[in-house]
Amino acid sequence: MSPASRYTYLGPEGTFTEAALRTLPEAATRELVPMVSVPAALDAVRTGEAAAALVPIENSVEGGVTATLDELASGEPLMIYREVLLPISFALLVRPGTQLTSVKTVTGHPVAQPQVRNWLAARLPEAVWESAASNADGARLVQEGRYDAAFAGEFAAGPYGLEALVTDIHDAENATTRFVLAGRPARPAAPTGADKTSVVMWLREDHPGALLELLQEYASRGVSMMRIESRPTGEGIGRYCFSVDCEGHVADRRVGDVLMGLKRACQRVRFLGSYPRADEVWPTLAPGTTDEEFVAAADWLNRCMDGRA
Amino acid sequence: MSPASRYTYLGPEGTFTEAALRTLPEAATRELVPMVSVPAALDAVRTGEAAAALVPIENSVEGGVTATLDELASGEPLMIYREVLLPISFALLVRPGTQLTSVKTVTGHPVAQPQVRNWLAARLPEAVWESAASNADGARLVQEGRYDAAFAGEFAAGPYGLEALVTDIHDAENATTRFVLAGRPARPAAPTGADKTSVVMWLREDHPGALLELLQEYASRGVSMMRIESRPTGEGIGRYCFSVDCEGHVADRRVGDVLMGLKRACQRVRFLGSYPRADEVWPTLAPGTTDEEFVAAADWLNRCMDGRA
Amino acid sequence: MSPASRYTYLGPEGTFTEAALRTLPEAATRELVPMVSVPAALDAVRTGEAAAALVPIENSVEGGVTATLDELASGEPLMIYREVLLPISFALLVRPGTQLTSVKTVTGHPVAQPQVRNWLAARLPEAVWESAASNADGARLVQEGRYDAAFAGEFAAGPYGLEALVTDIHDAENATTRFVLAGRPARPAAPTGADKTSVVMWLREDHPGALLELLQEYASRGVSMMRIESRPTGEGIGRYCFSVDCEGHVADRRVGDVLMGLKRACQRVRFLGSYPRADEVWPTLAPGTTDEEFVAAADWLNRCMDGRA
Amino acid sequence: MSPASRYTYLGPEGTFTEAALRTLPEAATRELVPMVSVPAALDAVRTGEAAAALVPIENSVEGGVTATLDELASGEPLMIYREVLLPISFALLVRPGTQLTSVKTVTGHPVAQPQVRNWLAARLPEAVWESAASNADGARLVQEGRYDAAFAGEFAAGPYGLEALVTDIHDAENATTRFVLAGRPARPAAPTGADKTSVVMWLREDHPGALLELLQEYASRGVSMMRIESRPTGEGIGRYCFSVDCEGHVADRRVGDVLMGLKRACQRVRFLGSYPRADEVWPTLAPGTTDEEFVAAADWLNRCMDGRA
Repeated sequence: MSPASRYTYLGPEGTFTEAALRTLPEAATRELVPMVSVPAALDAVRTGEAAAALVPIENSVEGGVTATLDELASGEPLMIYREVLLPISFALLVRPGTQLTSVKTVTGHPVAQPQVRNWLAARLPEAVWESAASNADGARLVQEGRYDAAFAGEFAAGPYGLEALVTDIHDAENATTRFVLAGRPARPAAPTGADKTSVVMWLREDHPGALLELLQEYASRGVSMMRIESRPTGEGIGRYCFSVDCEGHVADRRVGDVLMGLKRACQRVRFLGSYPRADEVWPTLAPGTTDEEFVAAADWLNRCMDGRA
Repeated sequence: MSPASRYTYLGPEGTFTEAALRTLPEAATRELVPMVSVPAALDAVRTGEAAAALVPIENSVEGGVTATLDELASGEPLMIYREVLLPISFALLVRPGTQLTSVKTVTGHPVAQPQVRNWLAARLPEAVWESAASNADGARLVQEGRYDAAFAGEFAAGPYGLEALVTDIHDAENATTRFVLAGRPARPAAPTGADKTSVVMWLREDHPGALLELLQEYASRGVSMMRIESRPTGEGIGRYCFSVDCEGHVADRRVGDVLMGLKRACQRVRFLGSYPRADEVWPTLAPGTTDEEFVAAADWLNRCMDGRA
Repeated sequence: MSPASRYTYLGPEGTFTEAALRTLPEAATRELVPMVSVPAALDAVRTGEAAAALVPIENSVEGGVTATLDELASGEPLMIYREVLLPISFALLVRPGTQLTSVKTVTGHPVAQPQVRNWLAARLPEAVWESAASNADGARLVQEGRYDAAFAGEFAAGPYGLEALVTDIHDAENATTRFVLAGRPARPAAPTGADKTSVVMWLREDHPGALLELLQEYASRGVSMMRIESRPTGEGIGRYCFSVDCEGHVADRRVGDVLMGLKRACQRVRFLGSYPRADEVWPTLAPGTTDEEFVAAADWLNRCMDGRA
Repeated sequence: MSPASRYTYLGPEGTFTEAALRTLPEAATRELVPMVSVPAALDAVRTGEAAAALVPIENSVEGGVTATLDELASGEPLMIYREVLLPISFALLVRPGTQLTSVKTVTGHPVAQPQVRNWLAARLPEAVWESAASNADGARLVQEGRYDAAFAGEFAAGPYGLEALVTDIHDAENATTRFVLAGRPARPAAPTGADKTSVVMWLREDHPGALLELLQEYASRGVSMMRIESRPTGEGIGRYCFSVDCEGHVADRRVGDVLMGLKRACQRVRFLGSYPRADEVWPTLAPGTTDEEFVAAADWLNRCMDGRA
């Protein structure tokens, strides 16, 4: 297949990222290529070897995926085309025939551990945990006999000849991972009415209240912030940039106005895209923030300048 | 002369308003018509009998001239073309030959009284004050022998055959009155770099913090407010509109952006014009608020929407 | 009677101010003394000749009464003990037997004119208006035969031997005047739950956004501003102080916290008192702003400082 | 030694955390115990087995250390007693006699990789990287002959019989890690004038602008925020708490006032301590925010309530 029909993702096969990718309708007609790391998955897009890459960006238990946040903030620009929300629950995968009582060693990705810790303490208090490079890698190690059981997505059982002894394991209710499909900069998809817009901002100067001013750019147009994450710029302790998602689409006047405000107020802003919200929730617009009201205000300003207001 | 070359002003002749009007170069070629009241002066403009009217709008001792503020806020729209600042100091006008020691009764406009009160207490503690309808009217009453002396502008002595016994009387240092030349809505004069923009705003709803939000529209674009005055809307105690002057011209992008923000946030906004500042002070622009930065932000937004940011 | 039982008010007798004063229960047992001006009424309190003075402070049609605002803001401190709201409607007072058709000249206080202008235009379009020093004075001039009719409170008919030919005249619905009873500084009356607190503030420096910061002191504690009025400080155009009423009592923690914030943020603050709201409306407190929550936060801070949080 | 004289730290021996701990004067008289993880180091404090634990909290290249942030935000309360800043630069450790040209395989903690990536690309472009569990562990693996070289602190060479072939390797200038010494809640150390205060906050409700309001609590008292980090609460995507450092000490009135404001505004606040700033920078106090001004404002409020203002 051509690069245009190739999607990379954070591999290996059998991980939640692959499961998330397969929820996208177009995945059925693409070549899906697992990569060893988030930077590798995204670099394949930058070099033109793939059309897009699916990578995790935040987890409701573990927080932001810093590799993804940092890759999107620096280097050759990329843009978010889509987001995918995947509820995360684990299955305990074992070689066929294994009984729960005979599980002495368990493995899984380090990120999985805090999400199954309580379950382990209650059901397998004696089991020894050792981390694997990925949940799928843990499954492979169980297949090879290195461990008795692995925590992974239930979908990883088949590829590795294992069976799911227990399913739906998750300490936190609503554990969810959010993934983004990132590609090269392009005209954003048309607004759906339930959209999200992502940017990275570097404050102009390190003055008290600079962050406050940026948040006011959103608040003054009634645009809700949905995520804010500070990341070091690499220039020393105390120097941060901010990765922010808000509701709305760059083509919505209120959002475009926020972006122009940020552009003027910040040392630098990187636009990361406008894309449909996976939760399909439509925002409630505050008075004075509809497209019609923005257009009416611009018209009125023109009339003022013409002496016809 | 035709109405197009007629300027009305708050009369009668010999008042500070006339003196202020005569500081305008074009006054030399206009027919200057005194009117009995601010509404009368402005109504002559509305009906087309005059091209513009000069009326006082605020005094550094007495505050806002409510008749002017209310006339500009309601009725057929008018626009401020110019402002004039006039230092206010009084002369004590007497019939020729009168000695200070023989002054037993004094008169003047009620607004003059607090501005000469200390002087009177120190120099003419026994003198009895009675108010006149205007400073000029006071001069006339002295001419007619009704009072011994009148407080008025020194320029009022000649027309009434009086002499200025004492000049430069003013309790407050820097006492100044600000006048505006108001005409029918027209394309504002071109920006000079040192401009002022006036509006009247009615808050959308009487919620706590509504005024705060309006002030933030100014602050977030680095536009300084120079005057704010609340006026009752006439709908009951607690219902106000706000008359606000800020630095800058409607054609300055930062000011235009503020105005559009106000238009969206307010129930109603009336644009009262952009005109040169009488003090000719140029503003210091905050970072991110120059026209260039506004244009650059709009360009960047377009590139974002095109996938070229 | 002793000064302790004497109340002054803005006279003369028969004005709305006297009517407002008589709505106070204690007025029945006080000597009520009309004074020629607001400063005179308040100075009698300052010098100890009276216990308190009732003066108008704002009118829903005409706005703030600047003499009162300025007297409270400067000179020997005074404090507001009470407020009174009086609906304002006028009666047309005539000598007994006068017919409406024979009314050719009318009088009244200048403030009354805009409140009866429409009525006059509709019912007595030919009548000539001349201003009187007060509404009551107008009644007296009608009694003396100088004018055919006076606009005044209906209650002014009797004292001047006139009759009310028409009553309930008011161009604006809900025309109301607010009066305050001012005395020497004293411990404020106990909170009623529906209170109001008044201050005058001078901004620390004339920096853009200074007013915004003051309003944020209120907003951040959920305290609603009910009136804001700018007044010149007398130091030149562009120099203002702000007279502000808010809901709540100085003894309410949220209000006390606002006042301390203002005290720190301002060059100067003058506390003008906490007193019952005439409209008896109780505020809806925002989350986090009850007295209990203020006390709990202070307790928690103490525990933090003790290592017990 | 008794638990009272025992400090745990994120081990193993030979890591930057140990080097940071040894910069504290009191470390010389404490038993220093390496632990396998941040939770293990902090749990030893919670259970009373150790007096305090030194753990990394943020890195100027990698960002916040989520294990530390999350452990401080949940579970039995802990308090930060001290912070330590350690410049991070790596040495390339090899078995004695190894030449740079013969280095084919390198190892180190995954966090080290992005900090030496450019150096590797320039100097050892062919070398294969494999991650180790810690920098010290990498040194051990080189000692055992599994890899040719390890990136670690220069101080790790001795313990493992290695030599530092290259020192001072760091892609980013000013790469620094910040560590905190955490113990059980106690009365904070006395203010030094250059202090820092840390809290974790949970917003009361997920309303637009809630974060903005919290930042205003800081800004309105002129207290600079030095770090803000959002962390998921574990209740689903979009639910965050905020970990914030600001300048100043809980005993500074401006900071205490901010904390009380946060306490009232937030659903929950956890105080994490006030401690000396490692950079020893004294803040510049904004007008109105000194202890004296806070005390004066409180005195004034008392006088207002007493009728003596």
